[in-house]
Amino acid sequence: RKGEMAKSTQLIDNEVFRAYATYTAIVLLKMMLMSLVTAYFRITRKAFVNPEDTASFGKGESAKKYLRTDPDVERVRRGHLNDLENIVPFVGIGLLYALSGPELSTALLHFRIFTGARILHTFAYLIPLPQPSRGLSWAVGYSVTFSMAYKVLKTAWLL
Amino acid sequence: RKGEMAKSTQLIDNEVFRAYATYTAIVLLKMMLMSLVTAYFRITRKAFVNPEDTASFGKGESAKKYLRTDPDVERVRRGHLNDLENIVPFVGIGLLYALSGPELSTALLHFRIFTGARILHTFAYLIPLPQPSRGLSWAVGYSVTFSMAYKVLKTAWLL
Amino acid sequence: RKGEMAKSTQLIDNEVFRAYATYTAIVLLKMMLMSLVTAYFRITRKAFVNPEDTASFGKGESAKKYLRTDPDVERVRRGHLNDLENIVPFVGIGLLYALSGPELSTALLHFRIFTGARILHTFAYLIPLPQPSRGLSWAVGYSVTFSMAYKVLKTAWLL
Repeated sequence: RKGEMAKSTQLIDNEVFRAYATYTAIVLLKMMLMSLVTAYFRITRKAFVNPEDTASFGKGESAKKYLRTDPDVERVRRGHLNDLENIVPFVGIGLLYALSGPELSTALLHFRIFTGARILHTFAYLIPLPQPSRGLSWAVGYSVTFSMAYKVLKTAWLL
Repeated sequence: RKGEMAKSTQLIDNEVFRAYATYTAIVLLKMMLMSLVTAYFRITRKAFVNPEDTASFGKGESAKKYLRTDPDVERVRRGHLNDLENIVPFVGIGLLYALSGPELSTALLHFRIFTGARILHTFAYLIPLPQPSRGLSWAVGYSVTFSMAYKVLKTAWLL
Repeated sequence: RKGEMAKSTQLIDNEVFRAYATYTAIVLLKMMLMSLVTAYFRITRKAFVNPEDTASFGKGESAKKYLRTDPDVERVRRGHLNDLENIVPFVGIGLLYALSGPELSTALLHFRIFTGARILHTFAYLIPLPQPSRGLSWAVGYSVTFSMAYKVLKTAWLL
């Protein structure tokens, strides 16, 4: 039982892996937050997509009018999808990067810049800030993931 | 060669990791099933989105009428996207959680509740069941992932 | 410090894991490329979704006309979402598969077929090629992930 515990905590004892775990948990929680923001806007804007969600507003026409799209809801949903498109590659490539033996300081630099960029991206999308705020924060996160992928391929290459 | 095998099966020998692998495979297979359900409804409802998909129905107007949205297809697609939004964080945070040295019984409790909640969520979405079935099953899965993230951050924290 | 490095590179020294890392980085980079293709079509087709993205085209009605959907943009976005739906299960199940101790040659076969199928799928979607090109390349990738999931469940099963 003890040997098992030791084995299971091997990776988590490694500092680079701990940093990866910390930043991955943070960006995934940030992404999960988008679900709550969507729900908040759906409820305050009364804009739903599933008929069963409007049942509490009465039956027939009175409820049907809440089955509509709302610009704020759609905006959050686009931000959420953009998170999926960018945070999934970060989590996948970041894991391989953390296992490819980078210096802790270099790894922290990558993880911190990515996380900061995605938090900025969310604010730029939701407020919204004028361009190129959103475009730049997207590009910074994208470049960090690209840089990690380069290190992974250089270290692991076996085609 | 033998040493390599031993190394490669180290993680998979750990019971918590085996439980993680089992439940992750199950929820990802469940998510993949949504593609088949979408295809089933697209074909039975004759509701397609790509012109090349309707070519077998003839040319011109006769095929064009099948380029349309269908409420059942859209419902499955929303369920599929909801899976992506919730199962991706589970898989990512769950891996870190499994490596953070939890008790097997605690880990199993998390994995079982999440998997059960997501299966219920799929039924609630597709049948559909009256609310709050879908909302509650979503919230249960969300809370499990949140609880695992808390354990990961407590164990690994290195900012 | 040295012991730590050794620990961190343990997995990456394993050949099956190196192959997994290589192909996962490749398919995730391919998925990330879809963002650039979307941006390319949005700019060349002048078809945007966020009002702040059209500010450089002037104010009022002159900019508003660029807030529209374009068939080419929507096609790339569907391809991107299909990547998310299929590459996420590959990355998650593939990691568990790589840790379940498969033969290197068998693992390479799985990773190569999946990667080839998804690259074909992208060309079939974007050109577009007549069906069943897209359908078949999708089904091949899907089957590879399914086969890996079977091996994972057989090796790790702990419910």
